[in-house]
Amino acid sequence: MKAIVFDNKVKLMDIEKPVAKEGESLIEIAKAGICNTDIEITRGYMEYSGVMGHEFVGIVKESFNSSLVGKRVVGEINVGCGDCEFCRSGLERHCYNRSVLGIFNHQGAFAEYLVLPDKNLFIVPDSMSDSQAVFTEPIAAALEILEQVHIQPCDKVAIVGDGKLALLIVQAIQLTGADCTVFGKHESKLAIAEKFGAKTSNDENLKFDIVVEASGKPEGLMFAKKKIKPRGTIVLKSTYASDITINMSQFVVDEINIVGSRCGRFEPALRLIENSSFNTDALIDKEFNVEDFDKAFDTSLQSSLKVILNFK
Amino acid sequence: MKAIVFDNKVKLMDIEKPVAKEGESLIEIAKAGICNTDIEITRGYMEYSGVMGHEFVGIVKESFNSSLVGKRVVGEINVGCGDCEFCRSGLERHCYNRSVLGIFNHQGAFAEYLVLPDKNLFIVPDSMSDSQAVFTEPIAAALEILEQVHIQPCDKVAIVGDGKLALLIVQAIQLTGADCTVFGKHESKLAIAEKFGAKTSNDENLKFDIVVEASGKPEGLMFAKKKIKPRGTIVLKSTYASDITINMSQFVVDEINIVGSRCGRFEPALRLIENSSFNTDALIDKEFNVEDFDKAFDTSLQSSLKVILNFK
Repeated sequence: MKAIVFDNKVKLMDIEKPVAKEGESLIEIAKAGICNTDIEITRGYMEYSGVMGHEFVGIVKESFNSSLVGKRVVGEINVGCGDCEFCRSGLERHCYNRSVLGIFNHQGAFAEYLVLPDKNLFIVPDSMSDSQAVFTEPIAAALEILEQVHIQPCDKVAIVGDGKLALLIVQAIQLTGADCTVFGKHESKLAIAEKFGAKTSNDENLKFDIVVEASGKPEGLMFAKKKIKPRGTIVLKSTYASDITINMSQFVVDEINIVGSRCGRFEPALRLIENSSFNTDALIDKEFNVEDFDKAFDTSLQSSLKVILNFK
Repeated sequence: MKAIVFDNKVKLMDIEKPVAKEGESLIEIAKAGICNTDIEITRGYMEYSGVMGHEFVGIVKESFNSSLVGKRVVGEINVGCGDCEFCRSGLERHCYNRSVLGIFNHQGAFAEYLVLPDKNLFIVPDSMSDSQAVFTEPIAAALEILEQVHIQPCDKVAIVGDGKLALLIVQAIQLTGADCTVFGKHESKLAIAEKFGAKTSNDENLKFDIVVEASGKPEGLMFAKKKIKPRGTIVLKSTYASDITINMSQFVVDEINIVGSRCGRFEPALRLIENSSFNTDALIDKEFNVEDFDKAFDTSLQSSLKVILNFK
């Protein structure tokens, strides 16, 4: 089968089709999305090599659970051991022995076929298009903020960054009624934030109760510090390969709460896509056939909107 | 009056006695404690120069509020504007225009006399000795953790550091019923932690729900990261002059909550000292007369237990 592999560089390869074991299903990938984490992997993040990708929608082709065969599914990307304190409490995404689709120890979704445990799969409602469904994973990641931090309707929230994840986070936070302001550098993307009803600003002096750092850059944390009120909460959504040099005392003096935030649950993401709470169409840059993967990655590097790969 | 001043180096000087204005009181200092922050100031922290010190107990000698005159008092160290959103909500310690006793823009307590606003003063119960009362400020700082983080009776908590603040934090956290383990380097101080009922350990593999970083060193954060469970909370109590180089992605991936924690409220500290919830006697290294300030600072640099200066 065709697969996009990272091994020092990104290449299209012909590799063996995976085989589902008991409790697993074989999924034929329809579409997959390129995430900033995929770009960071090409820069050395997680020292991953193998089939890339973790955002997908596809059809179950083979499964030991016959009721799944033929179903259109999306899948959670963390594969836990199923038996530890984290897995038992529904936090497979923090299992010490987990593998992570296209990021750590597990074949990714940029391939014609993928095997995942049945417990990771969620059936996509018929009303949802493939291009919407492929956003389930990043929308779950945006909603993870609301699982971790109680954002109140009167809070003033800043989002640092105007990329594809930032623009999903804007929509997630607006569900709380909070007053959202986006700090970004790209006029066309700030225009999308405004279309979603958020404010945009470059006012140096504004201060916020909550700042979500989704710029994808290490320097984003320092910018977030400038924008946060004492006793406020900075949510870190960016993962990247590089270090920062920082004096932590400033966070102690102002009693700032820094919350790392990664993957979220798929159920609420699917509910909220289905009831039209998220505009995903405005966030699609372009779709490419898998053969044009190099153009797809180039576009993704240059643009911060979503690039989708078509495998069928 | 005599005062211990930092101005490139620590020196005993004769300076003018301060004068109380309306709403303020003149306090004759009895005892003052040397804190790790004082030591960090001598290393450049906050770029402070002036009279040092912020932990004290003394007697009100002059006040526009006659009911205060003759009273034994301790005092909160942050002097707020009294009119901003923070001051109005009881968080003077986060007022943007605050001064801080012996740390920022305000004469410190290592002097024969000190002027503070009446609203900063708390009368010390008669049952409490001066040597106990001088611990009110650091005990309030330890209790600040309980104001910010909900520590549950079944939580496993690690304290990184075995210095004087760490040993107060141990006692504060034990009030919650949580299971406390101290990671330190000094046998005599670890023995005190054990005397207080905490465990001590150097087991590399133990993981905790909450880790309090009170080592006073930038590297403490990395040690805390090794000890924290995914989704756990690291409380940062250390302030220091130097930077660290760090990759923040590890906190994102494990969804760690980092909470900066500084000064706390005096009322609960006084209540808990009065009802014998804190053993402060075990934490006193030595008391010195002010004239022996150089020996006092040398002792404080070498030891992590509390050094007290006597001004009377």
